[in-house]
Amino acid sequence: MHLQHLETAGVKLTATDNGFSLVYHGRVILSHSPEAPCLWMGHGRADIKMFRGNFSIKDRLNEKLALTEATMTSQADCWHIRFSRGNVISATLTVGLDAGGRLLLTLNNDADSHNRIWLRLAAQQADHIYGCGEQFSCFDLRGKPFPLWTSEQGVGRNKNSYVTWQADCAENAGGDYYWTFFPQPTFVSSQKYYCHVDNSGYMNFDFSAPDYHELAFWENRATLRFECADSYIALLEKLSAWLGRQPELPDWVYDGVILGIQGGTDVCQQKLDKMRQAGVKVNGIWAQDWSGIRMTSFGKRVMWNWQWDSELYPQLDTRIQQWKAEGVQFLSYINPYVASDRPLCDEAARHGYLTKTASGQDYHVEFGEFYAGVVDLTHPDAYNWFKEVIKQNLIGLGCGGWMADFGEYLPTDTVLHNGVHAEIMHNAWPALWAKCNYDALAETGKLGETLYFMRAGYTGSQKYAVMMWAGDQNVDWSLDDGLASVVPAALSLAMSGHGLHHSDIGGYTTLYGMKRSKELLLRWCDFNTFTPMMRTHEGNRPGDNWQFDSDDETMAHFARMSTIFTSLKPYIRQAVAQNARSGLPVMRPLFLHYEADARTYSLKYQYLFGRDLLVAPVYEEGRHDWTLYLPEDRWINLWTGEAANGGEITVAAPLGQPPVFYRAESEWQALFASLRLIDSAGSTR
Amino acid sequence: MHLQHLETAGVKLTATDNGFSLVYHGRVILSHSPEAPCLWMGHGRADIKMFRGNFSIKDRLNEKLALTEATMTSQADCWHIRFSRGNVISATLTVGLDAGGRLLLTLNNDADSHNRIWLRLAAQQADHIYGCGEQFSCFDLRGKPFPLWTSEQGVGRNKNSYVTWQADCAENAGGDYYWTFFPQPTFVSSQKYYCHVDNSGYMNFDFSAPDYHELAFWENRATLRFECADSYIALLEKLSAWLGRQPELPDWVYDGVILGIQGGTDVCQQKLDKMRQAGVKVNGIWAQDWSGIRMTSFGKRVMWNWQWDSELYPQLDTRIQQWKAEGVQFLSYINPYVASDRPLCDEAARHGYLTKTASGQDYHVEFGEFYAGVVDLTHPDAYNWFKEVIKQNLIGLGCGGWMADFGEYLPTDTVLHNGVHAEIMHNAWPALWAKCNYDALAETGKLGETLYFMRAGYTGSQKYAVMMWAGDQNVDWSLDDGLASVVPAALSLAMSGHGLHHSDIGGYTTLYGMKRSKELLLRWCDFNTFTPMMRTHEGNRPGDNWQFDSDDETMAHFARMSTIFTSLKPYIRQAVAQNARSGLPVMRPLFLHYEADARTYSLKYQYLFGRDLLVAPVYEEGRHDWTLYLPEDRWINLWTGEAANGGEITVAAPLGQPPVFYRAESEWQALFASLRLIDSAGSTR
Repeated sequence: MHLQHLETAGVKLTATDNGFSLVYHGRVILSHSPEAPCLWMGHGRADIKMFRGNFSIKDRLNEKLALTEATMTSQADCWHIRFSRGNVISATLTVGLDAGGRLLLTLNNDADSHNRIWLRLAAQQADHIYGCGEQFSCFDLRGKPFPLWTSEQGVGRNKNSYVTWQADCAENAGGDYYWTFFPQPTFVSSQKYYCHVDNSGYMNFDFSAPDYHELAFWENRATLRFECADSYIALLEKLSAWLGRQPELPDWVYDGVILGIQGGTDVCQQKLDKMRQAGVKVNGIWAQDWSGIRMTSFGKRVMWNWQWDSELYPQLDTRIQQWKAEGVQFLSYINPYVASDRPLCDEAARHGYLTKTASGQDYHVEFGEFYAGVVDLTHPDAYNWFKEVIKQNLIGLGCGGWMADFGEYLPTDTVLHNGVHAEIMHNAWPALWAKCNYDALAETGKLGETLYFMRAGYTGSQKYAVMMWAGDQNVDWSLDDGLASVVPAALSLAMSGHGLHHSDIGGYTTLYGMKRSKELLLRWCDFNTFTPMMRTHEGNRPGDNWQFDSDDETMAHFARMSTIFTSLKPYIRQAVAQNARSGLPVMRPLFLHYEADARTYSLKYQYLFGRDLLVAPVYEEGRHDWTLYLPEDRWINLWTGEAANGGEITVAAPLGQPPVFYRAESEWQALFASLRLIDSAGSTR
Repeated sequence: MHLQHLETAGVKLTATDNGFSLVYHGRVILSHSPEAPCLWMGHGRADIKMFRGNFSIKDRLNEKLALTEATMTSQADCWHIRFSRGNVISATLTVGLDAGGRLLLTLNNDADSHNRIWLRLAAQQADHIYGCGEQFSCFDLRGKPFPLWTSEQGVGRNKNSYVTWQADCAENAGGDYYWTFFPQPTFVSSQKYYCHVDNSGYMNFDFSAPDYHELAFWENRATLRFECADSYIALLEKLSAWLGRQPELPDWVYDGVILGIQGGTDVCQQKLDKMRQAGVKVNGIWAQDWSGIRMTSFGKRVMWNWQWDSELYPQLDTRIQQWKAEGVQFLSYINPYVASDRPLCDEAARHGYLTKTASGQDYHVEFGEFYAGVVDLTHPDAYNWFKEVIKQNLIGLGCGGWMADFGEYLPTDTVLHNGVHAEIMHNAWPALWAKCNYDALAETGKLGETLYFMRAGYTGSQKYAVMMWAGDQNVDWSLDDGLASVVPAALSLAMSGHGLHHSDIGGYTTLYGMKRSKELLLRWCDFNTFTPMMRTHEGNRPGDNWQFDSDDETMAHFARMSTIFTSLKPYIRQAVAQNARSGLPVMRPLFLHYEADARTYSLKYQYLFGRDLLVAPVYEEGRHDWTLYLPEDRWINLWTGEAANGGEITVAAPLGQPPVFYRAESEWQALFASLRLIDSAGSTR
């Protein structure tokens, strides 16, 4: 099978005895024979139930057929592979190149009677797999299936944890290892290729077989793109060229810690003053309740009516300007729903801007003692209207940023303006929500000056979500839902093309007897110092949690760590700029720079922060030392100045000294060396 | 489609526009069209993992095809329906009669490439479904799937219970609503037909669709039998004529309560004397540790080496005869495994009587700090050898009976002498184990004199398991695994053709903080008084549980209830004889006798004991009264003599007075009336 331009592009299709193999730059992508086919199609009926963002998803499978026969033909600029099974079913796979020269596989069902596809990509036993969006429990995805569906991330996320069981009993909210706000049908293989799928329906990428990866699609067509590179860094550059890259962060982000505060203008002022007096570098106040509060049996909730509540926040407009002059941004909050009992929802309803029920009524989603309409972001007028809400009510007020929350709750039985089934739009929704925020900034010239941060994501969030945060960790030490889980989350997102990530300092979810301890808050602060943004959260039950101002020692801790963070500003800014330029993430798996070191491929809980800092956060309670792995290089312990080469090493790890090493050869070594002179008050000794 | 003898037998096959319908005595059994086919076939690979009798079962499904086309032809004495899907797959359904004149459907795959079948039987929305062996959580099976696989029953059996979660975390032992020792592919529809399947591989009977019942088989052929009747009683008579019936119980069974005792000859004697002195009617001692004990971290375990341990039980041989003369039987214990470190296992191994691994070694199953070989009951010599063990070591010792425990643990990867895959033999095993016991009795002329009781079962257990017990309930009040669960267990088994059932008085499983209370023991004693056999169990942690001799009041309670039980002897004996004669179970769903009363079809926790006693056990803690439902009849409260007609009624329900009514018209009314004169010491006032 010869097609000159495809072969020049590295694509080789070879007929075998009774099938074919498709090779791309030496990597076997597809291998087919009647005995070991690569394609199944079928028919199923999705059974999807949502309760407060927690999904139960089952497939009532009606049919599944192996398409054992394959016939290849050369077309003008591509190959057609016609798959069939007797006279019952057939499908066509087109093998060609996309406009960017990537290998493009488009699979089309020849009839409409089937809506399920299983495609097996060839694999080798030794392959490692990374990506699939933000994965909190796994980094190397080999050995498990990963259903891809944006949802709540789950509370506990491990069926053997008591917290998970309680959350499951309460509202099916416990979750599992694959639950995520930000799934994405993109993975990177250690064969140094990426595979990206354009679809947005429910998918399941199963990496558990030794000799294939099975991609399941709940649609009747699929489009896959592949690129190869000689290094992971080059591969991520190609991937981010396709997906888009995040712009640089506003410069003020590196100037301190953003304090999560609630309760009104006075409380914000008081806490700001208190922290600044304690020597803490503060660059922002983030007040999610700027639009008011609603009392429920769960506790205080934000009022989902996106305009300044001038009763709870008197003089906020002028105070924002005053704070800004002092180098302190005011950040607010918004999400893409409007509370059913509030004026903004009435306005949306009046204009027909809400998604609908099957019978044409406005769809109202239950959020826990209140309902909210879903702004129909597929409706151009609704999209523009909501964008104007952001422009006028948030940017217009002078907000330096906001949390752009949610995006995962699109019900699959709601009817959308664009005519696409909500089952298909569900995953796409978070990126659409991101774009609405992005456009609001772009159109007001505020990109690079104003910042929003998101938890939900999908393909497209690389370009439109300018900063991710890890969502709602438990205020505990659990591997699957505590501090530790943030590291694989950041790294898997990095391998999915998104390079900017941070987390709530101290975690968020405070339920089922969990309470944030002082130790957890300080360890999390230590960790976040070595991420591109520092921001605290009180948690959903602030009174149960240790807070940044709970005692003098804690404030002194934040003073010192925020000083270290701000001291790193030029280094972090450079890493962020590199991410914007070439898609090299700020928090990086070690194998990006040490790819010859086999051990680095399974490191889940340590990372490189930029090129020259190696960070291994302490994620267990009561520890005084910590063991980490150093790839072969010349390393200096950030806190002691001691040198080390490669291998496993155990270091002292008191609070305030998270295990961090820097490269002796770094151009920043003088800066790094200066950090150990910063004393407990945040001053340089 | 005419075939005279089939039409005479009530079978009608009619071609429709593009399919067919099969009607049996007016009941639509199959309905087929290309749009709504009745048959799917496919291919899968079973993924079955066992840990101590707890199974994780998944199907790695490769294919599933609807066989949309159907062509009918008349043969000499049957119809052939050839199903196909294009030129890809075909199968033949033969519709005929079996030797007994039952509707017989045999389904054969035309090629060997497929090993999964889904057959949809026509259903009506209003159908109720009963049977499927012993079901502890459901009685009416409509609305759920029921996987059929003999296994441990689970500890807790409800994912929302804390006990279940703990058991799941510990060893995947929590179970679910369908876990059972005794599954059976037999169900009774309220359309008054039964359907029985001859297969023994893994099956899943799914009764959740409104218009069909889907039967899934992990085999490439299936055989189904149907019969109809005008009444449920007549239907059960037909079903038990096919499956076999239990013989009558030994007469001594009705003479008192069998005391579960462990610890040696002296302990048995002491407890026997103590109970008899307290006025308790005792007809047996059941000592499971007669063959010795093994100390493990779990506690004392029985030594699985089936011969009298004369150190722990000195003079047992002579004492057995002495007790027998006093009307007290000695019952022992056996199961179909032999402890790997004991002589009986050596003997079996020497003769090649154990099941094998794939590589031909003896297979040893892990049972918790010890291993045991599996006696290969498909090997005629091994079967006979083990039958001789029963004859010589149990019957020869003079045992009046034994618990014939286990049978559910056949690993699916062991290799059997008869060449049938263990995946297919797994379900069949309990009935084979039952037959081994049955043959030992039959060949020694002891049927009707000696009694064994079993928890595991399958098709065939109707004939070969002469008494069932409900297995290992929790010593708690939970619906799914406590006292309550015994009632649907007995009733679903009754609808599956087995009419003799009882349970451990007080339950068994004492784990995760559960401890048997005095109240639970007494309520369970009250319940068991109205079953065909009374027998206590200390539980797996005797020291944690309230026991029959824990105080004088408890012993007096047993004295009175055992006197009531023995007083009922002629009534129970008659009901048991009727079961032996016609398959009318001793514990009966109310609708057997009140089929016009729609409400009786959903009663899960009350039953008829024989024809004339209606029993509604109290299964909640701390209750003083109890509400039950009486179908239209003339009823007398057993304890107060008050009359009642049909409807819901609330009665006083103190300990020792379980809610029981008898029919005023009963020939036994004088006997029933006399029971309320039995005082607390067990004497008649």
